[in-house]
Amino acid sequence: MEVTRLNFGEIIPELENDITSSHFLAIDGEFTGLHTGQDFNAFDTPQQYYAKLRSGGMDFLLVQLGLCTFRYNKDTGQFTHKAYNFYVFPRPFSRSAPDPRFLCQSSSLDFLVSQGFDFNKLFKEGIPYLTEAEEKKLREQLEEKQKARANSSSSKNEDSSASIPIPEEHTELIEDVCVRINDFLSNDEQDELILDGYNGFVRKLIYQTVGERFDSRSMHVETRAIDNHNRALVVTRALSDEDRKKKEEERQEQEKKELDTAVGVSSVIRMISQSGKLIIGHNMLLDICHILHQFCTPLPESYSEFKELVTFMFPRILDTKYMSCMDPFKDQISSTVLGHLHKTLSGEPFELVNVAPAVEGRGYASAEEKAHEAGYDAYLTGVCFLTLANYLGSLEEPAKKPVLPNSPLLRPYINRLHLMRVQDVTFIDLTGEDAEPPRDHVFHVTFPKEWKTYDLTQLFSPFGSVYVSWLTEASAYVGLHRRDQAQLVLNTLTQSDTYSVERYTEHVKRIKQTQRQCRCHRSSHSSQIYSPRATSQQRKKRSLEVQLTSTVQPLSSSYNSARKRSRSFGDFSIHSIEPIPEEETEAEDSKSGKGTVAAVAGGLAKVKRKKGKQGATAMFLAAANISTGKRKQEFEECDSWE
Amino acid sequence: MEVTRLNFGEIIPELENDITSSHFLAIDGEFTGLHTGQDFNAFDTPQQYYAKLRSGGMDFLLVQLGLCTFRYNKDTGQFTHKAYNFYVFPRPFSRSAPDPRFLCQSSSLDFLVSQGFDFNKLFKEGIPYLTEAEEKKLREQLEEKQKARANSSSSKNEDSSASIPIPEEHTELIEDVCVRINDFLSNDEQDELILDGYNGFVRKLIYQTVGERFDSRSMHVETRAIDNHNRALVVTRALSDEDRKKKEEERQEQEKKELDTAVGVSSVIRMISQSGKLIIGHNMLLDICHILHQFCTPLPESYSEFKELVTFMFPRILDTKYMSCMDPFKDQISSTVLGHLHKTLSGEPFELVNVAPAVEGRGYASAEEKAHEAGYDAYLTGVCFLTLANYLGSLEEPAKKPVLPNSPLLRPYINRLHLMRVQDVTFIDLTGEDAEPPRDHVFHVTFPKEWKTYDLTQLFSPFGSVYVSWLTEASAYVGLHRRDQAQLVLNTLTQSDTYSVERYTEHVKRIKQTQRQCRCHRSSHSSQIYSPRATSQQRKKRSLEVQLTSTVQPLSSSYNSARKRSRSFGDFSIHSIEPIPEEETEAEDSKSGKGTVAAVAGGLAKVKRKKGKQGATAMFLAAANISTGKRKQEFEECDSWE
Repeated sequence: MEVTRLNFGEIIPELENDITSSHFLAIDGEFTGLHTGQDFNAFDTPQQYYAKLRSGGMDFLLVQLGLCTFRYNKDTGQFTHKAYNFYVFPRPFSRSAPDPRFLCQSSSLDFLVSQGFDFNKLFKEGIPYLTEAEEKKLREQLEEKQKARANSSSSKNEDSSASIPIPEEHTELIEDVCVRINDFLSNDEQDELILDGYNGFVRKLIYQTVGERFDSRSMHVETRAIDNHNRALVVTRALSDEDRKKKEEERQEQEKKELDTAVGVSSVIRMISQSGKLIIGHNMLLDICHILHQFCTPLPESYSEFKELVTFMFPRILDTKYMSCMDPFKDQISSTVLGHLHKTLSGEPFELVNVAPAVEGRGYASAEEKAHEAGYDAYLTGVCFLTLANYLGSLEEPAKKPVLPNSPLLRPYINRLHLMRVQDVTFIDLTGEDAEPPRDHVFHVTFPKEWKTYDLTQLFSPFGSVYVSWLTEASAYVGLHRRDQAQLVLNTLTQSDTYSVERYTEHVKRIKQTQRQCRCHRSSHSSQIYSPRATSQQRKKRSLEVQLTSTVQPLSSSYNSARKRSRSFGDFSIHSIEPIPEEETEAEDSKSGKGTVAAVAGGLAKVKRKKGKQGATAMFLAAANISTGKRKQEFEECDSWE
Repeated sequence: MEVTRLNFGEIIPELENDITSSHFLAIDGEFTGLHTGQDFNAFDTPQQYYAKLRSGGMDFLLVQLGLCTFRYNKDTGQFTHKAYNFYVFPRPFSRSAPDPRFLCQSSSLDFLVSQGFDFNKLFKEGIPYLTEAEEKKLREQLEEKQKARANSSSSKNEDSSASIPIPEEHTELIEDVCVRINDFLSNDEQDELILDGYNGFVRKLIYQTVGERFDSRSMHVETRAIDNHNRALVVTRALSDEDRKKKEEERQEQEKKELDTAVGVSSVIRMISQSGKLIIGHNMLLDICHILHQFCTPLPESYSEFKELVTFMFPRILDTKYMSCMDPFKDQISSTVLGHLHKTLSGEPFELVNVAPAVEGRGYASAEEKAHEAGYDAYLTGVCFLTLANYLGSLEEPAKKPVLPNSPLLRPYINRLHLMRVQDVTFIDLTGEDAEPPRDHVFHVTFPKEWKTYDLTQLFSPFGSVYVSWLTEASAYVGLHRRDQAQLVLNTLTQSDTYSVERYTEHVKRIKQTQRQCRCHRSSHSSQIYSPRATSQQRKKRSLEVQLTSTVQPLSSSYNSARKRSRSFGDFSIHSIEPIPEEETEAEDSKSGKGTVAAVAGGLAKVKRKKGKQGATAMFLAAANISTGKRKQEFEECDSWE
């Protein structure tokens, strides 16, 4: 069901009950954009990846939260579900409420609107939210304001020494207003007198004059927004002390209610958190990051604190994308895009679990085509999860069915978040140390900025095929397909005036040293530096700054060398995070420089290149040594195949 | 009329004709937001103001461009008008097209949607645009791509040495696909074969295998986005050489057309520019900045270059807000908010000019209430302009009517852009030097960060009332109402351990020196630094950085002192640029610190303050010496009046 601020209050009790009585939950989010164009690198560590995600993606807004509750009925042996689609928009509820600025990515909005997303409804009826810190601050402010009001109503402003002299051209107008107020007060025909069409200065003069000439016990003046948000003065007759007190109480009640309402979606997240239920998502790192950042607390700079925060808020998480990329599924599933996964799980050897709506009209049927509506995607994710879980059960001796969310069979998949686009680390381990696969076969190479991937593959051709991951115009990581050639590379390629080759590990070590010597530089840069209109060069520069502030990221002197050349081919693209739709490739920022490598996670590089003077296009494939069965699902392609 | 990408192509000839045959044009824009929260200061110079506008406002998007053409008919002695509302949205037209990220301000979206603005239409049917540089780059890229295609079709990729070994688990799948392709090719039943549900890696393997096993002259494989943007492989039979050539020609034609279409709104701006017509706007600085930045070329860093750019693109501009704030209007017009202005001009002594639509359905009637639809506001602005102009004519001996756009009577108002919120400089002079009013009576004061405005007014109380304009938590500009007291202040207040008082001019001079010594710091900061989720403290810091890079902005050592205290009252607000709706006050960023001054342009400071331990609220007014008749229209108020 759709939840907006119009029915949010109503559904809360029902929602609370659904969450509490559920056996697990599935979530999904829709965003106004995905990434600012900052480049992820195939050899990012999870920590670096997080740093880039935090600095480059959190300025977008989660605008739809899908929540699907799943409940197991022992008697029928069946699950039922209930799905909620929350429209999320931080409309400021008062003049002192936060008025967030957020980023949009044009292609993401285009995508959402093409999927039928209703932005008018979003901006009109979206539910607000407050982080805990924002809520606390607003509650304190409100308390102060109410106290101040209580005091001011009993005292009077004595200090009129600094009042403004009324400019000559306004004396007539002010006198006229006083006559109108007198008229208003001397008969009971109207309930209020609206003084409209004056600018702030004139209104101020009126306030001042009224304060001087009229008894504040007999009347009351306030500013009110009228048609088209223009502001007018409204004069009303004074109330008796009792009425005044009553009105103030009502006002306080109203203010408190407004603030409670403003907590909005954040209260749903708190409910989910407090329930401690297993939470399922598909490729859910970005969802989790946004949910925490937007509704709870800004993402911490520290990666370990981030892990702590996630497990503190959501003690049990399962990512179906991670699960389906792992044994025993990886050989059975040729695409882990949610729609594809669902299709694959609908056939042999799987047995798609049928999950009916708990209540008519509050859920979906699998056959529905509502992809990219957050609630539907959450529902689909839950169905996929149950099917995967049951498949695990079917492999047991004796077979187990159903496999419930607390089954030990699920343990290997709990609290591991699928990591896109990193070559050799497939997940973030929320409760342990991340994998640190050996990178002896990876080299940091610097070279003339005229070089293209072809030149690199040529350079390394004696040692077999390579995986190239660009860093700057004049540097890249190069991974060998044949690891046993690593020493030979070092023996052969180290001496040259044109290029330099250094082991990945050595390079990282040197960078750490440079960083220690470079604290001053680091401290002068905030980690959240961003401008939507920044050129790719500026972005690259900033990306470097972010890299500098994370711990393990390499920095070579070449990073600071000229990066002025921005010549690029439309065909080349650098892919970052997960593009919409899901893993499918969207061209990203072809401005990012010359023929850069497009492939990232599949252990493969594929580039296109202008061939000599004829401008002929040729393909160059460079196969790497990464287990193709493992990450191949995310292999990307570029236009050159079309 | 509404113009979207659906009818944009059609209306172009008509539009071109309307612009060419018009006697003047009026424009207006609607934006996704106004300012990032960076504080403008009442003592900003126009140059500083521009620097802040450029760094803080240009990341928002102009989403609706209103254009109203006005034509004078000699025979009837009447003007007619035609109004256009362009929906503007940079939907990427291809994978290599720009995919802009832009900022939104929640309150601005809320405002627009409350005025009936249709965001679904915007994102679905908005017209794209390209700056000249973007267009040039895309044309070059397209040319290269087409050349490369021409060459590649005659050559063949010989290099298959680096092909990927097919993983065991995929051999069956690949073989199966080959059988399906063979079947497809061996009979004519289908026009194409769609291979769906494979991830990028598998698709890559298929490409590779097809290249090895099938004759490329007999078939063609391409990737195509199908339902929900997922990608599939599509196999078709090969074409004859002639058909292939024809298809390629069609493709090139299509690509060129796509690119032409993508220039969109920018071509309208070029038309307007080339027409050289007088362009009218109301409070049009922001409109002009956005139009140039978004559709033509990024705003230059240099203020003088900005002025040159504006006059180069639009040689004759008139700002009705500036005009109505000046003689002989300023005493007649108590509010220059567009709606108020129109109302005022509808009564004595003015004679509202009636401007009928040139064509039924292509314009407005004055009585319509379509405020904040860009086309309507442009229309209203044009009507106000004509009315103001005729009033000028009525003061002549003998009276002149009508006053046409080329009348010498308008000269004093041409190429002057109204400047909001600056105390003593009312406009930007596009073709001359900006005013530099004496600021002998203004002081830069530093003090303990616990101080509030009350403490400052107390400190200066012996010298009369003051205008306080906050800079940081511990510094402010203080302007004297009585200029003759300036020397006395310097004699009396200079010696203290608690605070320091320095002449504005001295302070500015010192800052310039500091800046010269501080080039290293400056060079390490881009002028476009921004994060929407930045705290007010971070924003303040950045604002300082921007100040540093502009020329005349003061910087005291106190700027770098602790600014950690973020305690604030909800009642206090700092206002920046022009809030929606127009000059009317919207609370802005109450996070910006303690009880800061709210008043800016009216020559008045008004603050609210927690009074001692009782927490009582008191008003403190500090009247300044600025000509109240001049800028009072923009005086702002804060909640304390309510």
